[in-house]
Amino acid sequence: MKTIEVKTGRPYNIYIEHGIIKSAGSYVRAVSKAVRAVIVSDSNVAPLYSEAVEASLKSEGFETSVFVFEAGEERKRLSTIEKMYDHFYEHNITRTDIIVALGGGVTGDMAGFAAASYLRGIDFVQIPTTLLSQVDSSVGGKTGVDLPGGKNLVGAFWQPVVVLIDPDTLSTLPRRYFNDGMGEVIKYGCIKSPGLFGRLETENAEDILDDIISESVSIKRDVVEHDERDTGERAILNFGHTFGHALEKLHGYSGISHGEAVALGALMLTRITEEKGITEPGTSERILSLLKKYDMPTETKFTLSQIVDATRGDKKSSGKGLSFIFLSEIGTCFINKIGTDKLVDFFCADNPMGQ
Amino acid sequence: MKTIEVKTGRPYNIYIEHGIIKSAGSYVRAVSKAVRAVIVSDSNVAPLYSEAVEASLKSEGFETSVFVFEAGEERKRLSTIEKMYDHFYEHNITRTDIIVALGGGVTGDMAGFAAASYLRGIDFVQIPTTLLSQVDSSVGGKTGVDLPGGKNLVGAFWQPVVVLIDPDTLSTLPRRYFNDGMGEVIKYGCIKSPGLFGRLETENAEDILDDIISESVSIKRDVVEHDERDTGERAILNFGHTFGHALEKLHGYSGISHGEAVALGALMLTRITEEKGITEPGTSERILSLLKKYDMPTETKFTLSQIVDATRGDKKSSGKGLSFIFLSEIGTCFINKIGTDKLVDFFCADNPMGQ
Repeated sequence: MKTIEVKTGRPYNIYIEHGIIKSAGSYVRAVSKAVRAVIVSDSNVAPLYSEAVEASLKSEGFETSVFVFEAGEERKRLSTIEKMYDHFYEHNITRTDIIVALGGGVTGDMAGFAAASYLRGIDFVQIPTTLLSQVDSSVGGKTGVDLPGGKNLVGAFWQPVVVLIDPDTLSTLPRRYFNDGMGEVIKYGCIKSPGLFGRLETENAEDILDDIISESVSIKRDVVEHDERDTGERAILNFGHTFGHALEKLHGYSGISHGEAVALGALMLTRITEEKGITEPGTSERILSLLKKYDMPTETKFTLSQIVDATRGDKKSSGKGLSFIFLSEIGTCFINKIGTDKLVDFFCADNPMGQ
Repeated sequence: MKTIEVKTGRPYNIYIEHGIIKSAGSYVRAVSKAVRAVIVSDSNVAPLYSEAVEASLKSEGFETSVFVFEAGEERKRLSTIEKMYDHFYEHNITRTDIIVALGGGVTGDMAGFAAASYLRGIDFVQIPTTLLSQVDSSVGGKTGVDLPGGKNLVGAFWQPVVVLIDPDTLSTLPRRYFNDGMGEVIKYGCIKSPGLFGRLETENAEDILDDIISESVSIKRDVVEHDERDTGERAILNFGHTFGHALEKLHGYSGISHGEAVALGALMLTRITEEKGITEPGTSERILSLLKKYDMPTETKFTLSQIVDATRGDKKSSGKGLSFIFLSEIGTCFINKIGTDKLVDFFCADNPMGQ
């Protein structure tokens, strides 16, 4: 078992172990005196794991209930959160009870936000069951829901009390979901770890899964500890995300996954910064090769102008500017703020992709 | 001018001054580099003050917009919050912009929760215009909305960056709203200040308004500083509230105001604890006299059994118990937890009011 300690305002541990899901109850009991536990899961994941988690919670004396919502990013809305609140109310959930998020990023983000806001905040546990959520959204305390205008526009910073990562859950996932997570893994290599990036190039990711998860989680942990509320360094985790979110938005949040959009955004951005002499030559080619190796999209039908236009309203904007993360080389990055009125000039002028 | 410093996680100042509303902009500018400011107000308050506040903000260089919702506790719902989010999105509000809550408790609670959750948290300012919000809800960082099941079941702890209290706004209020606030003022006297309680008995509240506001705010500040997230001492501020919320619920949140319900709850509770020998004899009689003096209800058509039953789902419950605040005497109180299964026994047995 690997244990990663996260020293945020409310410190917590991340445990990575094959089969840990079956003994979830004892890990939850170790951090909670709750009488009641609500498992929040979606219609894909609940049939696979909720019974095992519920049995484990019951064996530790928790009174359990399960809230299941229909799977899909399009359910990541306030209307689903309202239904969770109703469930909590009907099951007499109090401030000292606990919510258990069992599933992918949508489940964790929503269960986390519901936990952060019900009775002004109750404890919650993350049991992420996709690679994307294991390496990204389950760590760091960002919770949220989408608005019609954009992703994660509403949410809270709310740290889980414990995170349980069971790599076995990845074996039940369709290949595409696995690659979705690879987008974020590649990102960690790009911004912080030439070693991780190199291993993704020379080895097969599925053969070194435990290392990939723990290396990714450790990178994220280091960044989050320095900047829990995302006012500075944490922005580097958004490498590829501003373009990525714009791509997801242009696609109407279907047809391209979050990880795919982030990876493609990272590629497009790095091509531009390389052309401008900001990034070491050959970097975007290495990213392109990795995306191809892991079956991820490497081009889009949308123009750079459209993508830049779609960055409007991005959460990372502040005042009159938008922060972008640029690579110097693989493993080294920096934050660059560009004025909203300069975006088109910076990205689209003299660039044939801007047509 | 009176200045009260609040040393919570994010410290802020409360300024009490006649006419301060007209120079709101300079106080907001002193704590914010925002480009845009959204004034959130309701249909009663906006026509009175939003123009003055907006002009003052504009003079400090803020780009302003005004979000107005229909006045009334029944609007304190997630559906109103959603409309606020839409307004923020349409006006390109970013993480460094600011929300200005202008109005009573409903406005402050909702604008605060929208600020706490939009983009995972942006700054907000409280300009409370009722006595109740000036002495209570605008101080301490509790924000929230109601659910069909109960009041403030959803929310966040989110401190304002500054609070501006203008006692002149009280002169435009109907008498009944003034008395609503008196319920909380009497509460502060009961739990912490025999001096304040005594002045309410011997003087006319309206003649010593500035003192009442600053004394009440100071008491709340002291309590909140010790227990920002309401895990201990802060519970004493709930004196009268568990019965009070139950009364509001039984009345369908109309016909009895929050302050009236709290004051009546305090009276009923103290009668019982006095009978049980917990509270100094004569205390409930002094509370009754004050309620009569300030035209507040002193009886209810609901039985104690009904009231105790309606405390189910109260936010202050935890695990299997509910915390009540009992007075030893005027100015001194303590927290007493009663098991959910013991409530009826404790309050209704051998008590003619329980019939």
